[in-house]
Amino acid sequence: MKKLVAFGILALSLVGTVSAQVKPEDQIKYRQAGYSFMAWNMGKIKANLDGEFNVQQVQAAASAVAAIAGSGMGALYGPGTESDIGDRKTRVKPEAFQNMADLGKLATDFNAAAANLANAAAKGDKAAVQKAFGETGATCKACHDKYRLD
Amino acid sequence: MKKLVAFGILALSLVGTVSAQVKPEDQIKYRQAGYSFMAWNMGKIKANLDGEFNVQQVQAAASAVAAIAGSGMGALYGPGTESDIGDRKTRVKPEAFQNMADLGKLATDFNAAAANLANAAAKGDKAAVQKAFGETGATCKACHDKYRLD
Repeated sequence: MKKLVAFGILALSLVGTVSAQVKPEDQIKYRQAGYSFMAWNMGKIKANLDGEFNVQQVQAAASAVAAIAGSGMGALYGPGTESDIGDRKTRVKPEAFQNMADLGKLATDFNAAAANLANAAAKGDKAAVQKAFGETGATCKACHDKYRLD
Repeated sequence: MKKLVAFGILALSLVGTVSAQVKPEDQIKYRQAGYSFMAWNMGKIKANLDGEFNVQQVQAAASAVAAIAGSGMGALYGPGTESDIGDRKTRVKPEAFQNMADLGKLATDFNAAAANLANAAAKGDKAAVQKAFGETGATCKACHDKYRLD
């Protein structure tokens, strides 16, 4: 728990650093790109769990999800990204920006689950991947239910 | 060279498999998301090379670039993704789809360079990261010059 809080603060602190180098509209674009690319890779893992289990494809997909999750996306929630900027729409609820420590905790839960998913995939253990995939999806949903607009 | 050709054929073969599970318009969306997220991470590495070198941030960014590069994006160049689909515009030149083996070779060069970049970052060697970053950027440019619309 201490660790989660510490990570939450880390995620929060990142906002003040890297985001300064990236325009708010680009922060929204990049965070959407990250979630979109993770969605493709989660879909590939699901397809492998439901059908023929291609270990190489699952490992590659899980590595991409874990690396994107661990890339410091907290930096893409900087000042000015709380609402739409021109044609660049955001589905993040404004409340998220008033609860950055909570957002950081949810992000930390997701990072940990994605890392477990990548580890399970690296072992080529389908049952472990199935379990870790479900746990990762649950951390996605936890944040979507709380901070994503319908 | 044999290896590059083999990878080219692998990248090509992926198009026939995974893409079948993803609608053409989503294949375009996901490939654009992957390139966009890599661009953010390449930008972070450049900022670290030009300014204060934060090893953790460079390692996280290089891992994301390498994992996305290695995630089998060849599957996102499937049939029907050669041109715009409604509002979903693509900047990939039609010629790319008539030269999939060449596209596969360029992708393989990029994957190898991105893997080297991640390895250099893992060692925390700024000079090696600088060299690998330049080599990775060159493989990006090689494909953009040949197959990306201005």
